[in-house]
Amino acid sequence: MVRESQRATLAAVAREAGVSVPTVSKVVNGRTDVAADTRARIETLLNRHGYVARGLGGAQPVARTVDLVFDAMRTPNNLDILHGALEAAAAEDVDVVVGTVPRDPLGAAWARRLASARREGLILVTSTINPQQWRHFAEQQIPLVTIDPINLPDPEVPSVGATNFNGGMAATQHLLELGHRRIGFIEGPPGAMVAIARLHGYHAALSQAGLTVDPSLMTAGPFSFDTGFTAALRLLGREPRPTALFASNDSQALGAIEAARTLGLRVPEDVSVVGFDDINAAQSSAPPLTTVRQPFAEMGRVAVRRLLRLVAGETLGSPRIELATDLIIRKSTAAPSTASAATRPPVPPARNISSS
Amino acid sequence: MVRESQRATLAAVAREAGVSVPTVSKVVNGRTDVAADTRARIETLLNRHGYVARGLGGAQPVARTVDLVFDAMRTPNNLDILHGALEAAAAEDVDVVVGTVPRDPLGAAWARRLASARREGLILVTSTINPQQWRHFAEQQIPLVTIDPINLPDPEVPSVGATNFNGGMAATQHLLELGHRRIGFIEGPPGAMVAIARLHGYHAALSQAGLTVDPSLMTAGPFSFDTGFTAALRLLGREPRPTALFASNDSQALGAIEAARTLGLRVPEDVSVVGFDDINAAQSSAPPLTTVRQPFAEMGRVAVRRLLRLVAGETLGSPRIELATDLIIRKSTAAPSTASAATRPPVPPARNISSS
Repeated sequence: MVRESQRATLAAVAREAGVSVPTVSKVVNGRTDVAADTRARIETLLNRHGYVARGLGGAQPVARTVDLVFDAMRTPNNLDILHGALEAAAAEDVDVVVGTVPRDPLGAAWARRLASARREGLILVTSTINPQQWRHFAEQQIPLVTIDPINLPDPEVPSVGATNFNGGMAATQHLLELGHRRIGFIEGPPGAMVAIARLHGYHAALSQAGLTVDPSLMTAGPFSFDTGFTAALRLLGREPRPTALFASNDSQALGAIEAARTLGLRVPEDVSVVGFDDINAAQSSAPPLTTVRQPFAEMGRVAVRRLLRLVAGETLGSPRIELATDLIIRKSTAAPSTASAATRPPVPPARNISSS
Repeated sequence: MVRESQRATLAAVAREAGVSVPTVSKVVNGRTDVAADTRARIETLLNRHGYVARGLGGAQPVARTVDLVFDAMRTPNNLDILHGALEAAAAEDVDVVVGTVPRDPLGAAWARRLASARREGLILVTSTINPQQWRHFAEQQIPLVTIDPINLPDPEVPSVGATNFNGGMAATQHLLELGHRRIGFIEGPPGAMVAIARLHGYHAALSQAGLTVDPSLMTAGPFSFDTGFTAALRLLGREPRPTALFASNDSQALGAIEAARTLGLRVPEDVSVVGFDDINAAQSSAPPLTTVRQPFAEMGRVAVRRLLRLVAGETLGSPRIELATDLIIRKSTAAPSTASAATRPPVPPARNISSS
């Protein structure tokens, strides 16, 4: 029984060798009625696609493998990305070698190593990709798909992300609809594309509600609990105190909740907190965190499927794809307490209202 | 330059083939002064050890790979185990194929697949291992190391774990030293070895302090936030209320903190909470969680190192090894408030005091 994935490989080899699929099948099955040079060309391509010749003219499928490489494997998101990627790979009977980025900034040795190990392709998670790396992988014919690249790579580098701008807007709109007007914002690290998109989602929602951005309610830092803790201590010290905080990721948001607790403020009664990501810890915080879910598992699945399409010689319609985020309302957000709400104007009913 | 790991492989092949290391080197280097049957035997063994013959009599090392297989990859611990395992494997230039347990309860097809893919060995994380699986892996000469097996496998199955009994005792002693006497306990799932060991650590600490176990202060369930939440609601409803809760893992402990918040109780002022594991979320809870750290990354590292020793033909002195746990005191534990402490006897200064 020939599996789907094997059939796809045979088709790809036939296409690349300029022969018919039955001719490739003959070589796979050890038949002798194929010209020697054609056989050699087909065997080379079969090898590259993960078939290895055994015995006299016969060929047997070996495990097909791709590489999934993380920047540091310390972010809780990584587990979900990994889970989705393994699921999609298992469905195609492809094995996944997992690793962290090697200390080879230019990527030449790295690309050669992948090629010599007959890896079919590479998925690179939240890493910086530079033009040299991209060129080396192309030279070794290692297809590459990135998930949430830190920088804005060459537009032709395939990448999978989430709708960070929309998510940032949805989180801010949720707070506005609850009646909040002084909404503090904790930015992510400068230069990270996902952080910039969330920041501008916050801007856009305020602007649509006819509010101006108050720079004294914004502070930035790495995607960490400590950043969130320190930033929230500072923002909650402002007068009048913001009634809500929107943090650029969940770790920061959890730090903000702990800062509120330290200051003797209750969440959400005294201050609402929203995060971004929906990591595991967001569901188990006290109170459970309202946040913008990124579909990490689906991002892993989509990255694998797109990589396998590249391996099969297909082209991707759009190199960049963004999957939808989803606002998850839990217990860390509520209407501002009447004391503070009374001092604020009501939510503007429509856009295009001039700044307050 | 021959690397350490290659040298170890050559030595293992020489041992298994019953020849000298220089003879193996001759085959590797394509020399012709080796008898045909000896050469064939050595090449078979080289293949099995991850060398693949190329060209006429020559042999080249390919990427050595081992498999790291998780039960479900949903536990936050898995990321740390993975991180440690990848680090140790990278140090030996070994690639790691990551997966989840296939639906092949007896393991025959699984073992054959690993063998045909030339995997050098397998690490199985928090899974149940049965004698048939163990036999199939042995038949295919795939060395196996388990991390935290769910059941108590055959004593000869190599396993790496943590000192769960000691950890359970340390957590309970910490609460006793703070002055707590009514300490609720949230058990793990029945039958899980790690849960049984933690439970008995709790028993042992109470017994050493001259206290008896109060069954009305104990409740059990899966290692989840929901278990901890429900269990804590029940335990904190007891009269007199327990002044502390020890949960068998961090997810349960976080559920207990949220239950306290829901009941209007402050942690640690009204109730102390201790967990077990030290997952990422334990550091970012409100308040940050006192817990028993399991050295997950080190467990991953040790499992890989022990597996590679088995691959090299060495025997392990002790198939089972337990790494030390570590009590991490954060902000979720404190002395009981004077109101409750006043009604309790002081800590007994020594063991062997009769039960209260």
